[in-house]
Amino acid sequence: MIRPAELIERKRNGEELPADALAELVLAYARDEVPDYQMAAWCMAVYFRGLSAAETFALTDAMVRSGETLDLRSVLGRRVVDKHSTGGVGDKTSIAVGPIVAACGVPFGKMSGRGLGHTGGTLDKLEAIPGFRVELTTEEFVAQVREIGLAIVGQSGDLVPADKKLYALRDVTATVDIVPLIASSIMSKKLAGGADAIVLDVKVGDGAFMKTVEDARTLSEVMLELGRRAGKEVVCLLTDMGQPLGSAVGNALEIREAVETIRGEGPPDFTELVLDACARLLALSDLGVDLAEGRRRAEAVAADGSALAAYERWVRTQGGDPSLDALERAPVVAEVVAERDGVVVDLGALAVGVAALELGAGRRAKTDAVDHAVGVVCRAKRGTVVSVGDVLAEVHARSGDAAAAAVAAVGDAYAIGDEPPRPRDVLLDVVS
Amino acid sequence: MIRPAELIERKRNGEELPADALAELVLAYARDEVPDYQMAAWCMAVYFRGLSAAETFALTDAMVRSGETLDLRSVLGRRVVDKHSTGGVGDKTSIAVGPIVAACGVPFGKMSGRGLGHTGGTLDKLEAIPGFRVELTTEEFVAQVREIGLAIVGQSGDLVPADKKLYALRDVTATVDIVPLIASSIMSKKLAGGADAIVLDVKVGDGAFMKTVEDARTLSEVMLELGRRAGKEVVCLLTDMGQPLGSAVGNALEIREAVETIRGEGPPDFTELVLDACARLLALSDLGVDLAEGRRRAEAVAADGSALAAYERWVRTQGGDPSLDALERAPVVAEVVAERDGVVVDLGALAVGVAALELGAGRRAKTDAVDHAVGVVCRAKRGTVVSVGDVLAEVHARSGDAAAAAVAAVGDAYAIGDEPPRPRDVLLDVVS
Repeated sequence: MIRPAELIERKRNGEELPADALAELVLAYARDEVPDYQMAAWCMAVYFRGLSAAETFALTDAMVRSGETLDLRSVLGRRVVDKHSTGGVGDKTSIAVGPIVAACGVPFGKMSGRGLGHTGGTLDKLEAIPGFRVELTTEEFVAQVREIGLAIVGQSGDLVPADKKLYALRDVTATVDIVPLIASSIMSKKLAGGADAIVLDVKVGDGAFMKTVEDARTLSEVMLELGRRAGKEVVCLLTDMGQPLGSAVGNALEIREAVETIRGEGPPDFTELVLDACARLLALSDLGVDLAEGRRRAEAVAADGSALAAYERWVRTQGGDPSLDALERAPVVAEVVAERDGVVVDLGALAVGVAALELGAGRRAKTDAVDHAVGVVCRAKRGTVVSVGDVLAEVHARSGDAAAAAVAAVGDAYAIGDEPPRPRDVLLDVVS
Repeated sequence: MIRPAELIERKRNGEELPADALAELVLAYARDEVPDYQMAAWCMAVYFRGLSAAETFALTDAMVRSGETLDLRSVLGRRVVDKHSTGGVGDKTSIAVGPIVAACGVPFGKMSGRGLGHTGGTLDKLEAIPGFRVELTTEEFVAQVREIGLAIVGQSGDLVPADKKLYALRDVTATVDIVPLIASSIMSKKLAGGADAIVLDVKVGDGAFMKTVEDARTLSEVMLELGRRAGKEVVCLLTDMGQPLGSAVGNALEIREAVETIRGEGPPDFTELVLDACARLLALSDLGVDLAEGRRRAEAVAADGSALAAYERWVRTQGGDPSLDALERAPVVAEVVAERDGVVVDLGALAVGVAALELGAGRRAKTDAVDHAVGVVCRAKRGTVVSVGDVLAEVHARSGDAAAAAVAAVGDAYAIGDEPPRPRDVLLDVVS
């Protein structure tokens, strides 16, 4: 039997823990046999001492073993692909990617999370669709993927309960931003979900966990190594979160933008990311296509309406109304206007995310309710040339006071200069 | 209102916390409004980042304010002196110091702790005296100090409850050996106990927390600074715990040795430490004597029997039988003999402490019972010249098996060489 205090001390002293001892610690914690205070001390020691590749894998593997696992591959009789984003501002990628990939004939079954702080969560966005049910049983989830090739639901509590417990603890003990713990949290859920190949969208910039490309590359390499040890193919896309993704930030607003993108009418940066992610998922699938052919097929299903049809069938199957007219609209819409001529040199993702949060689009605490109608639409992005009085952004608010505050905050998020900024693609790098 | 997660993060990032925020954290923790897991993460961050002098004082001061405080000075109408040891093997110093100081006319009222691991606790030793009551109410304690000038009792739960709670947490989260936390734990209890001047016996060596003189000096300087900020006089004695103090290790055995020392018949190293500590306490008291005169008076009351009389009166007042014949004796006594001629070059304090612990003299877990009769008596110490077959030590055990194991362990603790070791005084340094 392990002695948790001894394992904490050994990690604190910089020692590499044996895989079996570490696994026992995590599994005992999941069974409530190791108290939160010991795990919190261990996490803080990990902040300072790190984890080796072997330790990170042992942790991830134990987290997977703490609960049930899905074997979607056996159920579907096919290779399974999955995607995940580390979270950002205006990140509705999965909601557009799912229908496009499904329309290309590749099943897409994804378990998602809710948002916290300035980053939104896919489930909260989907719940902006009237009637949409995110809480399916695992059986319903699997059946839906088999029948219509597409489902996005809430993470089952039966999968990776250790991660759920550990994440909640890290959230209140200043131990969230630790690369091996982030990597094992993400990868344990993907591995338990039964994916054979995984596309990871690692956000980089002031609106993301990873502030620099170097940090994002470090995290990507840890996740790639975890995939390698588990026998899974992993591709990490390092994507820009220095400004919001696309235009819309806020739940119903983002659904609208996702649907526009599925129809081939989305904002350029978001469309580029969606098509690239789809191409990579198709290339990793059992279709036997390369990246270029994957991209071609993704563009084709967006253009010919079959991706939109897949979206509508999916939403109806989960109880929702796919019509954009059904989405709630905020009662107050106010404009942020340019105060000078020039070019947008910066648009802070964090500031816009916080403004949306303050409007009610997100939650500060886990128990907060989300207002689906409110948010921000950034009409001008980095590099847009503007004249004084041009509309930079719209604020969708519940009240005039809330709108005024958000207009000021979003205005501050914009920097307008004379020289155009160096162009920056949404896709910064690929690590695979 | 403070946000504990934010304070943890700021400490983790190496920031100095404002005194009021830190105080609020500790006081909220004492009131059970901050959970153990947040305090554990904070303690681990302190392990890596340390605390400034101002933070350490804010922590100590908040711990004092977490409970009641004693104002012995007002009750006695006199200046109050106190002593404390950081704990070691064979450390029965307070039990000899108390009666000597009291016999010199200086009131001595001390709250003590129990032992854990290889170090014994004064309360456990006193309970080896048949009938001795360590659990007095604060009122009984104060009344006894006023009436007979001497009391040693268990730490009142009403004093420094934050320390009690924090220490229990640190004990199971690998956050015990952190200098500012050790310093604030010790000093908060002394300050709440109402002392005007404090002699701190900081043990140094393999049987102590502080393994080197440098570490002990660091701890001493932090405690001195805490005393200075609280307006108290503090003297730190750095004393040798590279070998057990005196000869006896084990509760009844140590009572016997303390009484012998009070009579002026104790082992040289222990006698030296006791007389030095007494001299310093007398010099810090309101007697108006210097160190040399303090020493002379301490030697005098040991020689003329008045210290022994003070001991007997004290023990009887707390319900005990002061006769040495009343002390329980272990049924099995076995000898550790020298296997070669030579000189004792080393006698490991930790090894002897652990051997006594295994015999039952100490407790591994807080709930363990202590066997008062068992222990080890080290007849030969560092520098003793021995011939093959000489008795190095006696083992006092509950059974033959236990005795055999202890004889082997204590034998291993002795190193016998050809050249005498460099002489080392029990008093290594004084920091004041």
